[in-house]
Amino acid sequence: MTLFGIVTAFMAISTLSAPLSPPKTLQWDRVAPGVWRATIGRKDKLNLISAAAARPAKDALKKQGDVETPPIDLSLASGENVAGHAVARIPLLPDEKLYGLGLQMHGSDRRGGVYHLRMDHYSGGKDRLHAPTPLYISSKGYAVFFNTARPISIYAGVGNRLGSPGNPKSRDRNTDPAWEAQPASDAVEASVQAPGMEVFLFAGPTPMDALRRYNLFCGGGALPPRWALGFWHRVPLEASAEEVTRETEEFDRRSFPLDVVGLEPGWQSRSYPGSFVWSEKRFPDPAGFLKKLGDDNLRVNLWENPYVAESSPLYTPLKPFFASHTVWLGAVPDLTIPKAAEIVRQHHKSVGIDLGVSGYKIDEVDGVDVWLWPDHAAFPSGIPGDQMRQIYGVLWQRELETLFEDSGKRTFGLVRGSNGGASRFPFAIYSDTYDHREYVTGITSAGLAGVMWCAEARSASNGEEWVRRMQTAVLSHIAQLNAWADGTKPWSFPGYEEPVKKAMQFRIEILPYLYTAFAQYHYQGTPVIRAMSLVDGGDETDQYLLGDDILVAPMFAGTKSRKVRLPHGEWFDYETGKRVGDGETIEVTPALDKIPLFVRNGALIPTIAPQLRAGTLRKGTPIILRSYGNQTPHGALYDDDGETFAYRKGRYSWFDLSIDKDGRGVMTKREGDGSSLYGAITVQSFAR
Amino acid sequence: MTLFGIVTAFMAISTLSAPLSPPKTLQWDRVAPGVWRATIGRKDKLNLISAAAARPAKDALKKQGDVETPPIDLSLASGENVAGHAVARIPLLPDEKLYGLGLQMHGSDRRGGVYHLRMDHYSGGKDRLHAPTPLYISSKGYAVFFNTARPISIYAGVGNRLGSPGNPKSRDRNTDPAWEAQPASDAVEASVQAPGMEVFLFAGPTPMDALRRYNLFCGGGALPPRWALGFWHRVPLEASAEEVTRETEEFDRRSFPLDVVGLEPGWQSRSYPGSFVWSEKRFPDPAGFLKKLGDDNLRVNLWENPYVAESSPLYTPLKPFFASHTVWLGAVPDLTIPKAAEIVRQHHKSVGIDLGVSGYKIDEVDGVDVWLWPDHAAFPSGIPGDQMRQIYGVLWQRELETLFEDSGKRTFGLVRGSNGGASRFPFAIYSDTYDHREYVTGITSAGLAGVMWCAEARSASNGEEWVRRMQTAVLSHIAQLNAWADGTKPWSFPGYEEPVKKAMQFRIEILPYLYTAFAQYHYQGTPVIRAMSLVDGGDETDQYLLGDDILVAPMFAGTKSRKVRLPHGEWFDYETGKRVGDGETIEVTPALDKIPLFVRNGALIPTIAPQLRAGTLRKGTPIILRSYGNQTPHGALYDDDGETFAYRKGRYSWFDLSIDKDGRGVMTKREGDGSSLYGAITVQSFAR
Repeated sequence: MTLFGIVTAFMAISTLSAPLSPPKTLQWDRVAPGVWRATIGRKDKLNLISAAAARPAKDALKKQGDVETPPIDLSLASGENVAGHAVARIPLLPDEKLYGLGLQMHGSDRRGGVYHLRMDHYSGGKDRLHAPTPLYISSKGYAVFFNTARPISIYAGVGNRLGSPGNPKSRDRNTDPAWEAQPASDAVEASVQAPGMEVFLFAGPTPMDALRRYNLFCGGGALPPRWALGFWHRVPLEASAEEVTRETEEFDRRSFPLDVVGLEPGWQSRSYPGSFVWSEKRFPDPAGFLKKLGDDNLRVNLWENPYVAESSPLYTPLKPFFASHTVWLGAVPDLTIPKAAEIVRQHHKSVGIDLGVSGYKIDEVDGVDVWLWPDHAAFPSGIPGDQMRQIYGVLWQRELETLFEDSGKRTFGLVRGSNGGASRFPFAIYSDTYDHREYVTGITSAGLAGVMWCAEARSASNGEEWVRRMQTAVLSHIAQLNAWADGTKPWSFPGYEEPVKKAMQFRIEILPYLYTAFAQYHYQGTPVIRAMSLVDGGDETDQYLLGDDILVAPMFAGTKSRKVRLPHGEWFDYETGKRVGDGETIEVTPALDKIPLFVRNGALIPTIAPQLRAGTLRKGTPIILRSYGNQTPHGALYDDDGETFAYRKGRYSWFDLSIDKDGRGVMTKREGDGSSLYGAITVQSFAR
Repeated sequence: MTLFGIVTAFMAISTLSAPLSPPKTLQWDRVAPGVWRATIGRKDKLNLISAAAARPAKDALKKQGDVETPPIDLSLASGENVAGHAVARIPLLPDEKLYGLGLQMHGSDRRGGVYHLRMDHYSGGKDRLHAPTPLYISSKGYAVFFNTARPISIYAGVGNRLGSPGNPKSRDRNTDPAWEAQPASDAVEASVQAPGMEVFLFAGPTPMDALRRYNLFCGGGALPPRWALGFWHRVPLEASAEEVTRETEEFDRRSFPLDVVGLEPGWQSRSYPGSFVWSEKRFPDPAGFLKKLGDDNLRVNLWENPYVAESSPLYTPLKPFFASHTVWLGAVPDLTIPKAAEIVRQHHKSVGIDLGVSGYKIDEVDGVDVWLWPDHAAFPSGIPGDQMRQIYGVLWQRELETLFEDSGKRTFGLVRGSNGGASRFPFAIYSDTYDHREYVTGITSAGLAGVMWCAEARSASNGEEWVRRMQTAVLSHIAQLNAWADGTKPWSFPGYEEPVKKAMQFRIEILPYLYTAFAQYHYQGTPVIRAMSLVDGGDETDQYLLGDDILVAPMFAGTKSRKVRLPHGEWFDYETGKRVGDGETIEVTPALDKIPLFVRNGALIPTIAPQLRAGTLRKGTPIILRSYGNQTPHGALYDDDGETFAYRKGRYSWFDLSIDKDGRGVMTKREGDGSSLYGAITVQSFAR
């Protein structure tokens, strides 16, 4: 090419133009009771549902009941392909609120925002999340899920199409005080840069019903083993087998509950990237170490950062399946390729599960741009980096869950990134962000994203904060102290041991109630922890319902009182049974050792006496029914063997809880072929 | 489809896999002296160069000299298409720093960051910018420009390709203290979701030389009319013709310089969206109003928000060219379609330029997601919303610039969003963000993005802040007070009028020097304002070089002193001529009325006596050469008619400035066929 020959390249830009046609009305199929599906263009073979290998829980969906009439006016829902984008447009009513759009750390109603949902380590904002689930739940009682593994942009009631009949009147800003900077929009629009996308619509009639259908459509929520609901403690980075053992012994000696010990990177011979094998120095006899802890009824959870060091025995067999780019110089296997997944599973079996490891913590699958592979990284399956990032944590969960299923043992673990479709995976999300209020919002919003959240305690600037954080930790999906960095113990703040122990004991005390709540998640799709938006359309993110009947209002260090909005009906203090109010906002001033917990009128809360291990309840453990309020008391209790998948073959029990005319507690089997763990029934009555 | 028939859709994901091949070495063409081009895949017809209709300034590029040897090892530069992404990989040396990557508001060296460059209103961060120019300048003396209108992600020395020879050694985080969270990368990688992309490489040998070549390749920097370098004042939103006139008269009565009056939305009969016609109520006689101001040697700049109200006369003719979505319910014309552009130009001609309007302020072309069209908006030309957003401000600048060119009059205006390729457009960027330190960083980084920045003053919390902000405003590309919202005047803070007036007068005083600096931008590609990274590789963002010889170190309210790093050589105080240091960091404690300004040893700064209008310098205006230091003094002076495009036909003058042996100032014509405006030469010697 001659000098300046490129001048010809500097031509005027495109003069092509075609009149714009309106988007096409979507065609919907009813694919399950109360579930509709539409497709725009040609959907990707890899999507959130396929990445999670999610299958609808058919029977559970049927039990939810069929719905003939779609929950929205389907004639107003449209889709189109626009210059490389696939776009869905779902109508909105003027007074509708929208909840969900991922594991958000702030706020409740998402209407009026634009969400560029990306997998990332949360560092503020609304776009980059640990679980960027493209699911929203309407206050009108339905939910919409965009089944795509692409980075997706969701305009939640933002943007006015030219000529749309739902547009408000255009006003003059110069003179009209009613002018609005953001004119109301009559739709949610969602788009991906892709040939197509699948959209699911879930019926209500309530927002909770719609969310249930979403979770059940993804297979139902996770049902963890019973031990996983005890207390978890992660030991310091470089702890050796001996140090770990000493640490667990100290928990017992001091009578602090403990079920799970988490080992951090130091269990591996090298980390970041990892070897995926035990450190001979720190753990010379892994099998012996695991057996000793197992004999003591403790479970071991192993950290891993799923990027492979060249010195790892995984490296050579996985080599054909590595991505173009590394993470901390570790190679990234493409788990969408069955052979690669099989190699990963087999390694985990031989190095971990066969030795007695109970589960994993899958670290750094969320991102941070400067650490992860770039968006354009190539993977051997042909999936580009940006899509792989959206689902890498999901794929890793899938393979580990498969492995535990094959072993016949349930697991519960931690993962730093998940997404839509992944409801059934027994993993809770965690994060290095550490703002206590954000953690509480995370607890409330996790359920709206079809995931779970571990508001772990790690450190505190003073004893008061330590107590308040531990009180929150024990009321999240996993109750964990993560001492990987600084070795903090529950008793590290002198003078504050007792309120911390009390919180940890409370976790054990409500074990039957909590396990039942998880069973509701699994069998009915109802999240364990329920945002106020699901309870009664409230927008509070600093209080939530745990299970059916306990309202939790965490305290934050530095505050002596807080407001609690009680949902409709009368509510009672968990500890004293005293009536606190009736559908009103109250102010509470809880002592340091007290978590503000309120119980619904007529609730029967199944509890047990505090003990050190949740995983070793003996057959015949006495059950204590805490009875509140002034209505005929009732409650529910779920039980199974707490360890295996026998429940899938009917070996479980649902009981109705009640109190007979003589004031004795009654457990009435409602469903299932399982026996019950519990023995004597005591009633602790706070009834007025 | 039967109930649950979709189960078949929940299949295992892709099992396709292909071994990854390494990216291909790029093929480069030398397309201008010191400029190389390579293409990955099939580049978009619409790109930054084509959107700006940029054409290389051939002669100026030739004058920069030819370069045979590429500035980087081209064999290490590669490109590939990865699953919908076009990727460029440009090698980096270990000790290289990277500057640029848009109009950034923080920091200097961009190496080690990931930049998802998007057009947006700046609201923190490094990704969403008023000018997301995908251009970086290396400390090794070359520049790279990715010529794409797509949203682009740039991994600036981030990310390690598997097996890349430049990767550092992998270390064990458990035990090796030298482990790094971000292992050094040996390349910049840039990617777009597109079939291809064009990459340009500009030779140095210095970073400034490389930037010059970029600007000249885009046509050379803007050359504003001389009046545009005077003071600008934007009147309140709803000001009427009478109120505007009263306001300008008060400037004159109080002897505050003024050249340009900016009218805000109220000049239109309605706004947000706009009518694009004069308000009959506030401006019953636009032509008379403009003539009256014109007779007073004042220019008028009109605000506009380029989205069309249904009641606008522009609406019907533009209707075939509107996008699918609106902005504030205003229709968005597709200016890539020549017919639409023609309609827009003709309207501006008849309603504005023919009446005497001097230029425009193009508002809200940057974005804010909840206001702009969505990324997936459709435009009749087929360009999707996300690309249109990257260039909408560029297209609007292009059409207005074309219109003024056709009219034979130069313009200077404001725009809230620009991008690569747009160097030649006479528009400065501004923003509603208002942090003073960010504004100063914006001044320094604008040049690195091939754009200009107006650090306008709008308000202040006290008199001191007002003075310091005005001192910064007069040392940016446009010296403007923007009183649209609150009606602030230069004299609004009692007791602080004099330092404000002094700053405004200083702007006029250095007019010959400033106009020369703009000419350097136009003819040589050298930015008017030069970041320290371009001067000597420094990373300071709170000081900069204005033109060749004046170092500016703005003061911030609340501080009594500041550090200034002097580049190599001796430096002298602008006001006193006293030596302040020699290539060292000094601490200065400037009085409130003083801007810390330092002059290079041997500099001759051409100035004039203060006056109220920059645009009405009479033939024969005396010129004052301020002489500093202890070396043989020299300087440069550019001149032309200050109004028309006659300079393009050689009607301009470059003078060398010197002092003869008798101490008299000498102007020696070096180049051009123009005459000179200036008369008597005075020397004001601060030489030691």
